[in-house]
Amino acid sequence: MTVPHPFNGARLPVAILGATGMVGQAFIRLLADHPWFQVTTVAASERSAGKTFAAATRWLEGDMPAAVRDLIVQPCDPALITESVVFSALDSGPAQELEPAFARCGAIVLSNAKSYRMASDVPLLIPEINAAHIALIVTQRAQRGWSGAIVTNANCATIVLAMALAPLHAAFGARRLFVATMQAVSGAGYPGVSALDILGNVVPYIGDEEPKLETEGQKILGTLTGDAIVLAPFIVSAHSNRVAVEHGHTVCMSVEFDVPVTAGAALDVLRDWRGDEASHGLPSSPPMPLVVHTSLDRPQPRRDVQRDGGMSAHVGRVRADPQLHIRLVAMGHNVIRGAAGASIQNAELLAARGVIRAG
Amino acid sequence: MTVPHPFNGARLPVAILGATGMVGQAFIRLLADHPWFQVTTVAASERSAGKTFAAATRWLEGDMPAAVRDLIVQPCDPALITESVVFSALDSGPAQELEPAFARCGAIVLSNAKSYRMASDVPLLIPEINAAHIALIVTQRAQRGWSGAIVTNANCATIVLAMALAPLHAAFGARRLFVATMQAVSGAGYPGVSALDILGNVVPYIGDEEPKLETEGQKILGTLTGDAIVLAPFIVSAHSNRVAVEHGHTVCMSVEFDVPVTAGAALDVLRDWRGDEASHGLPSSPPMPLVVHTSLDRPQPRRDVQRDGGMSAHVGRVRADPQLHIRLVAMGHNVIRGAAGASIQNAELLAARGVIRAG
Amino acid sequence: MTVPHPFNGARLPVAILGATGMVGQAFIRLLADHPWFQVTTVAASERSAGKTFAAATRWLEGDMPAAVRDLIVQPCDPALITESVVFSALDSGPAQELEPAFARCGAIVLSNAKSYRMASDVPLLIPEINAAHIALIVTQRAQRGWSGAIVTNANCATIVLAMALAPLHAAFGARRLFVATMQAVSGAGYPGVSALDILGNVVPYIGDEEPKLETEGQKILGTLTGDAIVLAPFIVSAHSNRVAVEHGHTVCMSVEFDVPVTAGAALDVLRDWRGDEASHGLPSSPPMPLVVHTSLDRPQPRRDVQRDGGMSAHVGRVRADPQLHIRLVAMGHNVIRGAAGASIQNAELLAARGVIRAG
Amino acid sequence: MTVPHPFNGARLPVAILGATGMVGQAFIRLLADHPWFQVTTVAASERSAGKTFAAATRWLEGDMPAAVRDLIVQPCDPALITESVVFSALDSGPAQELEPAFARCGAIVLSNAKSYRMASDVPLLIPEINAAHIALIVTQRAQRGWSGAIVTNANCATIVLAMALAPLHAAFGARRLFVATMQAVSGAGYPGVSALDILGNVVPYIGDEEPKLETEGQKILGTLTGDAIVLAPFIVSAHSNRVAVEHGHTVCMSVEFDVPVTAGAALDVLRDWRGDEASHGLPSSPPMPLVVHTSLDRPQPRRDVQRDGGMSAHVGRVRADPQLHIRLVAMGHNVIRGAAGASIQNAELLAARGVIRAG
Repeated sequence: MTVPHPFNGARLPVAILGATGMVGQAFIRLLADHPWFQVTTVAASERSAGKTFAAATRWLEGDMPAAVRDLIVQPCDPALITESVVFSALDSGPAQELEPAFARCGAIVLSNAKSYRMASDVPLLIPEINAAHIALIVTQRAQRGWSGAIVTNANCATIVLAMALAPLHAAFGARRLFVATMQAVSGAGYPGVSALDILGNVVPYIGDEEPKLETEGQKILGTLTGDAIVLAPFIVSAHSNRVAVEHGHTVCMSVEFDVPVTAGAALDVLRDWRGDEASHGLPSSPPMPLVVHTSLDRPQPRRDVQRDGGMSAHVGRVRADPQLHIRLVAMGHNVIRGAAGASIQNAELLAARGVIRAG
Repeated sequence: MTVPHPFNGARLPVAILGATGMVGQAFIRLLADHPWFQVTTVAASERSAGKTFAAATRWLEGDMPAAVRDLIVQPCDPALITESVVFSALDSGPAQELEPAFARCGAIVLSNAKSYRMASDVPLLIPEINAAHIALIVTQRAQRGWSGAIVTNANCATIVLAMALAPLHAAFGARRLFVATMQAVSGAGYPGVSALDILGNVVPYIGDEEPKLETEGQKILGTLTGDAIVLAPFIVSAHSNRVAVEHGHTVCMSVEFDVPVTAGAALDVLRDWRGDEASHGLPSSPPMPLVVHTSLDRPQPRRDVQRDGGMSAHVGRVRADPQLHIRLVAMGHNVIRGAAGASIQNAELLAARGVIRAG
Repeated sequence: MTVPHPFNGARLPVAILGATGMVGQAFIRLLADHPWFQVTTVAASERSAGKTFAAATRWLEGDMPAAVRDLIVQPCDPALITESVVFSALDSGPAQELEPAFARCGAIVLSNAKSYRMASDVPLLIPEINAAHIALIVTQRAQRGWSGAIVTNANCATIVLAMALAPLHAAFGARRLFVATMQAVSGAGYPGVSALDILGNVVPYIGDEEPKLETEGQKILGTLTGDAIVLAPFIVSAHSNRVAVEHGHTVCMSVEFDVPVTAGAALDVLRDWRGDEASHGLPSSPPMPLVVHTSLDRPQPRRDVQRDGGMSAHVGRVRADPQLHIRLVAMGHNVIRGAAGASIQNAELLAARGVIRAG
Repeated sequence: MTVPHPFNGARLPVAILGATGMVGQAFIRLLADHPWFQVTTVAASERSAGKTFAAATRWLEGDMPAAVRDLIVQPCDPALITESVVFSALDSGPAQELEPAFARCGAIVLSNAKSYRMASDVPLLIPEINAAHIALIVTQRAQRGWSGAIVTNANCATIVLAMALAPLHAAFGARRLFVATMQAVSGAGYPGVSALDILGNVVPYIGDEEPKLETEGQKILGTLTGDAIVLAPFIVSAHSNRVAVEHGHTVCMSVEFDVPVTAGAALDVLRDWRGDEASHGLPSSPPMPLVVHTSLDRPQPRRDVQRDGGMSAHVGRVRADPQLHIRLVAMGHNVIRGAAGASIQNAELLAARGVIRAG
């Protein structure tokens, strides 16, 4: 059951902001053969602007798609970039001003930056979980007078947490979480983490990560009521760690719910979850949003992270917790499911729903 | 302030059971220049018995001390091994029968195995924390009719947890803990973890580890009342993970106490802690039992684990927890502070207190 | 241009010896959707025999194909295993006796073991290089009185070396090589290399590896003359090292030829090479046998090894040598191109040439 | 046999250029308790100048020595820095102009940069090998009109190569070398190599490294004849690789000499080597300049690199080469023996010889 092509078979031109970095490159890889979207503009900082993409970019995985090699890197200027869909891999600093500038000019901006995630009129979107939140765009446009819009995806570790928690929260009502993450080096971009900091090591701190883990999930799992999101009422305590893993954030969680929950009941809910129907059949949606592992020592990032092109989230070790109700391990690809793939799936949802239109 | 030599300057002969493995080798390294003890017998499984120690052993760190190279490996037979002090690096399987056999024959057995840790008449000893627990030896001898005794040290990750928790529990009374560990490969012995399992990976499971983390701490921090330990009444939820680190277990903890505790108050207590006076001046006791880090991203195993010969425990990132009172990161050398060094320090305490005597 | 299906569209039943190990599992993965062959028997040591494959095997990569999960592991006994094609992932010890036993009973044995590689009547086969060597099977059968045959592939590092050297040797005649390898841990099987030996380390020795690198290439690149191989007359000095890489052996080479060769001339030859026509269109043959890299710092195992399903070999840094003619870096997937994939491609060649027949 | 204190027990004030980087920090660690020298000035780029050293520096190993924490970082200006001994950890760009400026002002500059290593009037000094080369300073001062001087140490991998080759060259005359290196990430400084480039990977290229390996050794092992160095007449072919190792460059070598040399004869020479008498008893000289390993799989960087404070070089696997005379593996600490420790030992030699004087 595939969603019908929203643009009558023609690929819609899209631009990528921050195209030369780790997440920008993932956008380009994932869009190279995308059925709905085609990258026609790559934009980056002034330092890269004016060069060919091939000259401006140290390509990190596989081969650079031929279609972008000779594109001239543009500055991130809405006066020069006219695509109606803009994927943003900008850091929060430049995103703060540039993303609204594009939205004001009419672009739908799919953002990875934290700048507008928690704004009350901006969707923090995961199609499997909260597709209805795209209704916030109406409010956003009314309040801000924009013809475009900003739609965000969450922090890469939060997305992994939210995917595992969503069906459980829907079934049982999450109240309290204790969360410890072991995050891959690709989460810090490129060059990002120095080899001297992480080889044979654990760094028990990631700047500004724990606050995101403690607040974004409540919005993602919140309820659209009228024209606002009512936050989900659970509390999160987070510990973030960097480990010597290339891709894949691992998240250990202990969770308490509104009602008693056994490991068996939790497993049933996790296995049955298909995600919101609105996400079904989108080109980037994985066959099942969650892969439930029963082997005692899975999921593992190196062994599981590439499954379904990196768009599945994984859960395993679902078991009783001595204090709360259950414990489990979640894992997902931070660059795909947690960043570029998430933005693209969001754009697909917007296209399927007619928010993104051709012409 | 050094404890006086308990044997008038002569080094007491000691035997090592399981001498060829990872922890056995650590015993030999740490005892090579020990002022009180001297390794005179190395024992191992039947497979190694009869060979020289050099021939039977794949030596893992530094150079094999000359004094043990030509020792003939003995079988673990109390009829053949007559030293009055026996350090045991046996697995729990063989330890189950062999350690009592040695104690029955009069030896003080310093055990790393889990077999007798939770027995009500066996000390689970950390000199900085519960030196008074050695009084259990009287009960043990009375009940079992042994002239020797078994004294145990805890699981390697539990020791790290207990060192960080001890001063806080003493000051504020711990009630609840959420714990996530990232454990070094040396914790699994040699050859232990396959490179194919852990390179660039996290394995979110260590067999039989979480139960130890959830139960041993309450005994370590328990109170000797009459001739029994009253367990400390806190509850622990544990998540154990293996990471690509050589030495050093990292432990993230969220803790609730009997009374409200701020991060500042916790830091003061951690910094002031000197450990039980009984531990002061023992040859293996570090200058301070806890190194308190203020740098945001410390402690780190590769950078901090060798400090003070591996006998310090480390704490850092002491901060408020959104739900409980405080969060922190603890770290310690699993083979030294968490195993061989712990046993040796225990033996030193017993010697200082006259439980181990010359002749 | 695909080779016609040799069995009229039906998949030929095949057996795998040593099916539970690292290379055995690779056979199963690669054959799961193979158009010509189907795994119908899995065999392993007595320890595993009688269990289901799922119960006997710690599966290492991806998901175990459903078709083998419930197969009962057989002992490696030619009386019980009747498939006419047998892929052998046996160690050289058991291979020494078992592989001839199967060949005597009529099976074509595709062997990864070193036992018969250098036997004068046994092909050491790489279809892109020496397809003509399959003629040795006639001699082998005549001499040994077998109805089956043994066909071998080379040591995993030697295959990488041979793929890079083959076109250069054909064009210019190799005389002398200096070779230093950096080999992945998967080359030692599972559990193989202990994490404690290789994390953050280099081990400058691999048992019995340098002699293979110094002798097998001359046979692979030798010339079938009458019913024997005349060895290629170059000399190799080899240094073998183990590094902390999952898959992919990297080989640095300095080479002298019969005639002066510039880097440019070598590059032209490497880029033009398509391999022996007999290898074209086999199901496992990559689009081009060699991927020639021009980026200064490629090939790299983690970034390049999975290309073309691991069946391409890679060369890069082709440059002048201060003493000999050229230097270069070669790299290939040791488990796929260097072992299981090599055997399968060999079987495909034998099927295409009618040596392996249905019924 | 310790060299007498050259400054009557007082520590000579010294300055460090590039003090905040990886090698600069190593200078500070190694000099913290040095008997002859005391760091009184730390200098770095304009970006750091004016801050305290603690504020300007991300300290990488162990604890920052208390004595430098509050030093104000100076700009690298000879008008402001008046110490008569200057250790330079500058990159070759700034070194090109700054090191002569200091020498012109009277300072003895101990340089790690490549800028002046190959200048005919500049010693490329290793005290165990070519102490006599310090006589070039006379020429240097005469030609350049400097009251100070520049004395250099070689590239970090070349030093390892030279230490292993020196006694063999002295005994047998080296003619040809094939060299392949596996170099630690610390060789690239901090942050240096991105974790994403090297985790689970090999990078078969290090910029500008092979030319140094191919030329510097001939000067180090050259002969002072009159007022010039006659280069040693051997030829080197080098392959440089980066591996996932923290510290320690491993070098595989095949060597041909003027006369036939067996592995046994080479081993005898390597074991007997004490280095130039001029190096004996210097504070940084290790007990023996070479540690000769007989275990088949040693030296290994993680296991051997810290021996003797990192100042020993290591050799192992000395064996016959199929083409040249012998093959071996050498290894040494690139930051200590290959950089900061080398400069300090050079300064010690100059002090012992009266080139560096108090007052």
